[in-house]
Amino acid sequence: MTTTDIERLEQLFSQKSNRAGQARFTNPRASGEKIALSSGFPDPRSMPKADMAESMRLALEKDGEWALQYGANRGYDRLLEQLRIKLKRDQGIECTDENLLIVSGAGQGLAIIAETFCDPGDVIISEEPTWMGAVRHFRNLGVDVETVAVDAGGTRVDALTETVERLIAAGRHPKLIYTIPNFQNPAGVTTTLERRKQIIELARTHTIPVIEDDAYSDLRFRGERVETMYQLDTSGMVIYLSTFSKIIGAGLRLGWIVAQPRFINAFAALKPEGGTSPFVSAAVSEFCASGTLVEHIGELRSVYAGRHAAMLEALGNHMPDDVTWTDPDGGFFVWVTLPDDVTVSQITPGLQEKGVDVSPGTMFHFHGGGENAVRLSYSFADEGQINTGVKVLADEIAAARSRS
Amino acid sequence: MTTTDIERLEQLFSQKSNRAGQARFTNPRASGEKIALSSGFPDPRSMPKADMAESMRLALEKDGEWALQYGANRGYDRLLEQLRIKLKRDQGIECTDENLLIVSGAGQGLAIIAETFCDPGDVIISEEPTWMGAVRHFRNLGVDVETVAVDAGGTRVDALTETVERLIAAGRHPKLIYTIPNFQNPAGVTTTLERRKQIIELARTHTIPVIEDDAYSDLRFRGERVETMYQLDTSGMVIYLSTFSKIIGAGLRLGWIVAQPRFINAFAALKPEGGTSPFVSAAVSEFCASGTLVEHIGELRSVYAGRHAAMLEALGNHMPDDVTWTDPDGGFFVWVTLPDDVTVSQITPGLQEKGVDVSPGTMFHFHGGGENAVRLSYSFADEGQINTGVKVLADEIAAARSRS
Repeated sequence: MTTTDIERLEQLFSQKSNRAGQARFTNPRASGEKIALSSGFPDPRSMPKADMAESMRLALEKDGEWALQYGANRGYDRLLEQLRIKLKRDQGIECTDENLLIVSGAGQGLAIIAETFCDPGDVIISEEPTWMGAVRHFRNLGVDVETVAVDAGGTRVDALTETVERLIAAGRHPKLIYTIPNFQNPAGVTTTLERRKQIIELARTHTIPVIEDDAYSDLRFRGERVETMYQLDTSGMVIYLSTFSKIIGAGLRLGWIVAQPRFINAFAALKPEGGTSPFVSAAVSEFCASGTLVEHIGELRSVYAGRHAAMLEALGNHMPDDVTWTDPDGGFFVWVTLPDDVTVSQITPGLQEKGVDVSPGTMFHFHGGGENAVRLSYSFADEGQINTGVKVLADEIAAARSRS
Repeated sequence: MTTTDIERLEQLFSQKSNRAGQARFTNPRASGEKIALSSGFPDPRSMPKADMAESMRLALEKDGEWALQYGANRGYDRLLEQLRIKLKRDQGIECTDENLLIVSGAGQGLAIIAETFCDPGDVIISEEPTWMGAVRHFRNLGVDVETVAVDAGGTRVDALTETVERLIAAGRHPKLIYTIPNFQNPAGVTTTLERRKQIIELARTHTIPVIEDDAYSDLRFRGERVETMYQLDTSGMVIYLSTFSKIIGAGLRLGWIVAQPRFINAFAALKPEGGTSPFVSAAVSEFCASGTLVEHIGELRSVYAGRHAAMLEALGNHMPDDVTWTDPDGGFFVWVTLPDDVTVSQITPGLQEKGVDVSPGTMFHFHGGGENAVRLSYSFADEGQINTGVKVLADEIAAARSRS
């Protein structure tokens, strides 16, 4: 193609496409060749391969005509039934089918929720740092993001309240509040019960829907479950979002939204694929109905408790005194704050050279920031790799410091 | 909720959500209790249940760690390999991985392509009547649609050329041309080779990407394959879109896009779920690699040839002289034009009462029209149901006429 041809091509794209840019094509298999403390990939050794094969066999034997057919747009009916049982048992959420929508993973769920409420230029309030997928989805949609910090007690509700009131006073009604209350990704902190109630009250007062992103709640290995905001809320403002990615397998691409029916009906109308895969849903329904899910979650809690312990021990053993980190009660992530005189861009080349991947804090920020932090994941690497990886990170911090 | 509460809620939604409205929650299982000549559901009796169970078992045994893990955003690598083999063998399309993107069914593919090129208010040119999914996606996106008719030779290229030139003269560059060249849904017609070449030339001259939606091409039961536009094109303007929905099962939600790399990179950046399900893709890869797909397509061609024959015979036996219909060489659909004095709204209540579902022609139009036509599908109902359903339709046409 000539330069003119390429220029003509570039003019074809929409504003949304221009905001999104071009995909970087990565293959997760590449993580298998490294010490990957970067991604939120679930543990490869714990994948329920045989149980899922058996669940699929049973599902196709019992209901194959419909598992292989176009699906209901709310979701495969047997999965909705199993999900209601699971939500009541594990999250204390009682709901009916009218409150449920099956989606292709929580990422798709978040994108649909955001575009249901927001036009380009609208305002979303989000925690910062937050999940990199949210950063991407909100950017693609072209919304303005106002951020509030988190601390050891989760969302800083004082900052949230100030932000809501400031925006409303300026005539810009916030369209959504986005929060990850359990073992926050990436900070690892959990929002207290008291703050959850305050967030709900704020949302109710100002009619602002709240997205409660709860992908990790089943993977608590310490302490008592804090009630979900969905369960605490009586105003219909909370939209609960979760996924089978961390408790069965991310390769399923299967998640769910729980919300009031008016919201669910609007979300469903924007699902481009119609009913999310009945084929996957049928297998997962069997996996749930047989009791395997409960058993498997128990095993995973123990696996990740061990990984978490290995990570915390390695940090304690290897890190200099002026490095700090969070200590989550569940989930996959520890947030590490580097010494004041070290930035993540200084240590990244050395880490890459030694085959250790970490996630720079900058990935979790909307408007810059995070240069002084990294997110470490203990989900994918095993205990030995975690120790080696943290040691390499400590060495790189020391090397950066000695260079400066 | 009070009226004020509901009014406050309604003000929360985005323009896109307002265009899309609320979902009507339907369950495909309901079609099993009727004579369904309405939907494009594949034949339930032909679902490869046992073969897909075995493919899944093998896939999880061989590569379960990665089939259950987050996937590469282009698609699961073993599926890309099988797809290249399939496209070369069945569609004459030679491509590399850089030309491919796996999507959650062709519907998601179409939605992503449309939003990659179009902002609200932009213009798409589409055949009319056309697939109801395209009608929905384009409406949700807020684009203006200019329509061109089809006839026995497919897309009316004279009308297409006139429309392109008129829009460009008015300063409105068309962003996309949308076409279904094989056994068009719903009209059942196939675009001739000569016209395909003319469409490509038009697209090349004016730099307008063309979506070649080809969900049914493997299900040709008569005549010779016409070359795909993707294969004929050398300008990079053709975007080929297809799916496993009709040749394995719609419940998989698995389709693909073939296009120039610059387009593929832009599409992938807007895929909200990241890599489409590796779990489903792994099973389908085994289904392809074992040779089962080729065998299964052969069986399906024979099934649908039989259904098509039953439909044409029933129409010949039961319909009055002033009803006409198309006679497709493949695919699922016959387009029936009613007598001048009968509209589809007159016959729908009687059909519903007798448990026969047909698709009113109005569903396939963007700006009204189609009151004088119905689409009949011969994919889901068996031969006996097809005969009964067509007889009931003929009776209702006669009854409507005698009433007026």
